[in-house]
Amino acid sequence: MIESSVLEKPATIESYVQASVPQFLEELCEWLKIPSISSLPQHKADILRSVDWASAALVKLGFKTEILRTKGQPSLYAERIEDKRWPTLLVYGHLDVQPVDPVEQWIRPPFEPCVQDGRLWGRGAADDKGQTFIHIKACETWLKTRGRLPLNVKFIIEGEEEIGSPNFEALVREHQGKLAGEAVVISDTAMLAKGVPTVSYATRGLVYFDVVVEGPKLDLHSGSFGGAVLNPALVLAKILAAMTDRKGRVAIPCFYQDVAKLTKLEKKMFSRARFVAKEIEAVAGVPCVGGEKGYSVVERVWARPTFEVHGLTGGFQGEGSKTIIPQRAGAKVSMRLVPNQNPGKIVKSFERWVAKLTPKGVKVRVSMVPGGGPAFVEDLDQPVFQAAFRALRRAFGAEPVFERCGGSIFAPEIFKRAYAQTPVLMMGFGLPGENAHAPNEWLDLDNFRLGIIASAYFYEEFANKARNK
Amino acid sequence: MIESSVLEKPATIESYVQASVPQFLEELCEWLKIPSISSLPQHKADILRSVDWASAALVKLGFKTEILRTKGQPSLYAERIEDKRWPTLLVYGHLDVQPVDPVEQWIRPPFEPCVQDGRLWGRGAADDKGQTFIHIKACETWLKTRGRLPLNVKFIIEGEEEIGSPNFEALVREHQGKLAGEAVVISDTAMLAKGVPTVSYATRGLVYFDVVVEGPKLDLHSGSFGGAVLNPALVLAKILAAMTDRKGRVAIPCFYQDVAKLTKLEKKMFSRARFVAKEIEAVAGVPCVGGEKGYSVVERVWARPTFEVHGLTGGFQGEGSKTIIPQRAGAKVSMRLVPNQNPGKIVKSFERWVAKLTPKGVKVRVSMVPGGGPAFVEDLDQPVFQAAFRALRRAFGAEPVFERCGGSIFAPEIFKRAYAQTPVLMMGFGLPGENAHAPNEWLDLDNFRLGIIASAYFYEEFANKARNK
Repeated sequence: MIESSVLEKPATIESYVQASVPQFLEELCEWLKIPSISSLPQHKADILRSVDWASAALVKLGFKTEILRTKGQPSLYAERIEDKRWPTLLVYGHLDVQPVDPVEQWIRPPFEPCVQDGRLWGRGAADDKGQTFIHIKACETWLKTRGRLPLNVKFIIEGEEEIGSPNFEALVREHQGKLAGEAVVISDTAMLAKGVPTVSYATRGLVYFDVVVEGPKLDLHSGSFGGAVLNPALVLAKILAAMTDRKGRVAIPCFYQDVAKLTKLEKKMFSRARFVAKEIEAVAGVPCVGGEKGYSVVERVWARPTFEVHGLTGGFQGEGSKTIIPQRAGAKVSMRLVPNQNPGKIVKSFERWVAKLTPKGVKVRVSMVPGGGPAFVEDLDQPVFQAAFRALRRAFGAEPVFERCGGSIFAPEIFKRAYAQTPVLMMGFGLPGENAHAPNEWLDLDNFRLGIIASAYFYEEFANKARNK
Repeated sequence: MIESSVLEKPATIESYVQASVPQFLEELCEWLKIPSISSLPQHKADILRSVDWASAALVKLGFKTEILRTKGQPSLYAERIEDKRWPTLLVYGHLDVQPVDPVEQWIRPPFEPCVQDGRLWGRGAADDKGQTFIHIKACETWLKTRGRLPLNVKFIIEGEEEIGSPNFEALVREHQGKLAGEAVVISDTAMLAKGVPTVSYATRGLVYFDVVVEGPKLDLHSGSFGGAVLNPALVLAKILAAMTDRKGRVAIPCFYQDVAKLTKLEKKMFSRARFVAKEIEAVAGVPCVGGEKGYSVVERVWARPTFEVHGLTGGFQGEGSKTIIPQRAGAKVSMRLVPNQNPGKIVKSFERWVAKLTPKGVKVRVSMVPGGGPAFVEDLDQPVFQAAFRALRRAFGAEPVFERCGGSIFAPEIFKRAYAQTPVLMMGFGLPGENAHAPNEWLDLDNFRLGIIASAYFYEEFANKARNK
């Protein structure tokens, strides 16, 4: 760690961060080496190691830390109260990561992080250890350059975000007093493009299902039985196919009933972000021809609900041929939801639609995978957004953009339900193409550095706004 | 082996078989222990071991044997020429077996055969080592009880039947003179029910495909990209769903164009086999509600073409959830064909239909899995069918039934193309529910014993018919 006393001039936030990046990266790599995959039971101990690592990092900065147990994986709480009369900021992050399959597509092993080509590579680099670490280092920067934070900071670092935060609401309720603050900041999203600092004020919701079609009591010879019995894999295909129509709309009855329409202001803001389509195409390598006809790409990803198939399985999957009617076939599917859609109602509509599509002669089991939740949208007209806007502009030297996030982060909505009056802000430092849920995840090193600086500025800007309120 | 000299009376075919069954089963188990799975490259050496085993068994009976090489797996040829002026019967069987997955569903390991509950259990017990062995033992029975066969017998035991006999036609052409005979008998099918000896005079054809839908260049986060790009798994579902219509008919344009209509006689014969539907339901555990509306179950399985999905794969298939748009998704599919359908034309129709169903924004690769072929149907009005009818009635004490086989055995059609005038007869001793292509394959022990007796009788009946011609 570089002490400010050894620098020629008293270090500024910028100069301290600039000088410390190599050391910061070395530290972060240690965290990234822990394979804290929350969806796989065999990695339970790694979640605990990941908690311990974050705790040690914060204790070193004078934070008091506490492991908060849940019915599932634990989370880490930390606080540094400078002055009880000062405003308090709650920083949310998560210390669990996505699975790594298909692991053979990783150029470097997922848990052997390394720096190359201006990027930090490794599972969790962007989502979300890297971004959580940005805030830890923003705090360090304040402490090393000024000896104190400009406001009280609390951290809540979740251990189950990648499985949909099934126990996070209970955790927040249990520790509602402890976690309370004047604002919540979350860095778990991506900027719209390099050089375009971005504040997210909405996320889509999610309901996720396992759908299994079961037919005959065993795999059957497709010659002796083909034409007599229903084929579960074909039935599954027909059920899935009936989930969207020719116009790319979700065909589940009543699905769009409660969808909030975009305001004129939003339509206008969205049309300014038209470049997003090009970014998506560059990353995906395919044209933006999915989703609903009649909406722009930005509208479709930011503010329209979707139906997606995440996985298909069933029958013979090996090389060559096997002529069976499989006993069963299954799919993993989800729907992204937008403001005013009620997840409970959508679950019922989906189940009813599947039942209606199920022919006699097979059984279809629909089971909800825990961890879904509703969409979230924040009112932009609050001081915390102005503070973020100023901090990002100072750090990045560019005009920030306000976006709605296509992904589903449940923490904002959970905080909103617990603290109705507390604004929740998403200020992400990832980038499109960072492979957050795919092989070869990375974090841009400029964003890493500027993210720390922007976060440090944000603490100050927000403290000033909150004091002047 | 029990020598006829040690029996009190000179042994009859029936008494010899009856007394020898335990010994026969012990021998067959040795063959079944060899995991000669032709679809899996790692079992190449096991195919050779399986060839050697059969060769040794036939050499012991005074057959001359020869391994016939092909571009793929070899086959075994064997002959015992009693008298060049006598008629010659070619017995076809195969020594390769189906894969064993899902292997965890086997009650006993697939390659540790055992006798229990009146059945011989193990991969290949019915399909087709057990049934090929029936003929080997029918020959032994003649030799041990009469010192000679009643006609010349040739065996051709294939090594690639379970992958669709890709090299068998070339083999037959290469050895056309060697393999020639007055009739071909194949025991690789099932009886319609226990106690119902069955002769099959037709099989369905087959074309088999791998269909792969490729979308984005990597797995994408379904939040950040959902609604923008097409989902390959959903596209695949829509393509598969469009392969059949609401009436269970195959929806591929021109698919039914050349389908031979059933004759009135066949419709009548089929209606007598109505009990088949109950047999199918008992095995499958589901009602016979698949296939085309407007046709009986027997018609649908015996004489109507079908489209089936054998396997689905793609994206996340593990426990829990992962929110990706998968890079690709694939299916294994096939069509069973009936007389007059041309496989080449059907392949083209299918490929054209898939291309038509493929939206912009994804690529769909259709690759034919080698080993398909056309349907086969034999003229029933030939002496070899009368011989089989008499032999089966004598052995089983019940009226035999003539059936068309829903499965695809390519050997009959291949023989037909090579020897236009030589009748091909299928006389199977399997049973519905024997799990020929599924876990826990078995062969009924009564059918094993009566099959050997019936085959021995058949040699005699056919020799008489052929001599009197």
